[in-house]
Amino acid sequence: MSLEVKTQNTYNEDLNWRYATKKFDAKKEISSEELASLLESIQLTASSYGLQPYEVIVVKNSEIREKLKAAAWNQTQITEASHLVVLANLTHVNEAYVNTYLDNIAETRNMSREDLQGLEDMIKSTTLKLPAEAQNTWAAKQAYIALGNLLSAAASQKIDACPMEGFDAEKFDEILGLKNRNLTTAVIAPIGYRSHEDQYQHLTKVRKSKEDLIELI
Amino acid sequence: MSLEVKTQNTYNEDLNWRYATKKFDAKKEISSEELASLLESIQLTASSYGLQPYEVIVVKNSEIREKLKAAAWNQTQITEASHLVVLANLTHVNEAYVNTYLDNIAETRNMSREDLQGLEDMIKSTTLKLPAEAQNTWAAKQAYIALGNLLSAAASQKIDACPMEGFDAEKFDEILGLKNRNLTTAVIAPIGYRSHEDQYQHLTKVRKSKEDLIELI
Repeated sequence: MSLEVKTQNTYNEDLNWRYATKKFDAKKEISSEELASLLESIQLTASSYGLQPYEVIVVKNSEIREKLKAAAWNQTQITEASHLVVLANLTHVNEAYVNTYLDNIAETRNMSREDLQGLEDMIKSTTLKLPAEAQNTWAAKQAYIALGNLLSAAASQKIDACPMEGFDAEKFDEILGLKNRNLTTAVIAPIGYRSHEDQYQHLTKVRKSKEDLIELI
Repeated sequence: MSLEVKTQNTYNEDLNWRYATKKFDAKKEISSEELASLLESIQLTASSYGLQPYEVIVVKNSEIREKLKAAAWNQTQITEASHLVVLANLTHVNEAYVNTYLDNIAETRNMSREDLQGLEDMIKSTTLKLPAEAQNTWAAKQAYIALGNLLSAAASQKIDACPMEGFDAEKFDEILGLKNRNLTTAVIAPIGYRSHEDQYQHLTKVRKSKEDLIELI
C-alpha cells in the first residue's frame, strides 16, 4: 500500500507550519478569545476513562515566570512567550476523585449512580489499584495526550508553542504551590507568536522516514 | 479574565464530534489516502528533541487482530474497526539511535555533524543517562503526544477512533514481534467509522468544568 499523500489537508499543513519556537515575540499577546479556545481544546482532550487526572495552570504573571525560568535552565521562551501553559498531573487518584467524576457523569447524562456501577467497579479495580509510582506515570501520560492536542490546536490557530521537558519539576511544583494539591508538573508549553528573529523557523523539519516509522501488517 | 468561547472554531467542533467509539461499522474502511494523511500527522508530531522514540504499527490483518483482541479483554473495536493503530515506544534509546537521528538532521539540513555537537552533547547527557525504566516511561510519553495528535487529526477528517489502554502489553509485544526490536506497546487506537448502533455517540460529553481544570495566574 502506498503511503503517499496526494492532497495535502489543512491539518497537516498546520503541523508543517508549527515548530518548537525558541524565540517568541515578547510584544505579541494571545487574545483572551484565542486563549479560551485553546483551553477548551485541552478541556475536550480524551483521557483514560475520561478522568482527566491533571490541571492546567496558565501563567501570565511575570514575577512568577521569572522564577520558573530560573528553574528551567533560564530558557527565555518562558518569560518571552505570551503565556506559559503548565500541565500538572495528579500524583495519585483517590476514591473521592473517582466519585466526583462519577457524580459528574450522572449529573451530565441524567443517570443514577447505580447505572454507573459497572464503570465504577472497572475504574476502581484498575486505576485505584495501581502502585503509587504507576499512578503518577499513568496520570502524566494523560497530560501528554493533552499536550499533543494543545500543540495541534495552537497550530490550527497559527499560535506558536514550544513543548518543554527541560525544567526542575520539584521547583516548579514549589513555585506554583502544587505540592499540597497532589499535583506535579508533567510538561510545559510557552505559547504565543514566533519572533521574526528566530532562525529555527526556517529550518527544514527533521522526521523519521515513513519506512522507519510505520509498519503495515 | 473570561474563558467563555464566543465563536466556535472547526477544531473544537471536531473535538466535540469525536468520542471513544465503542462499536465500529465493520463494513466501512478508511481509504488509503485518508490513512496516509493520518499517518503523516503522526509523523509530524512533536517529540522530545525530535527523537520520535516509537514506531507505529498499523494492523489490518484479521488473524493478527483476532489474537490481539484476545489479549485485550475481547474488546470488539480491535477487529471491527477499519484498522488498528499500535503506538509502540522504544524500551531504551542507545547511542546508535541518537547518532542515526543526528545524521538525519545533518543530511536534511545540509549541516555537518560538528555543527550539531551542542545538541549531541545535550541529548547524550540527558536521555542516554536516564535509568532504564525512566527511558521507557519517557519514550512512552512521547507516544502519548502522538496519540493526542492522532485523535485530533482523525476527528478533523471525521474518522472515528477509540484510544485504549486496556490490553496486555506483554502479549501484544509477543504477537507483534516487538520484543527483539526493543519496542513495547504503549497505547492503541482502533480507527474507522462509528456504527449507527453505537449508543455512546449520543451521550453528552463529560468534562471537568473550566473552574476545576484551569487556573489562571
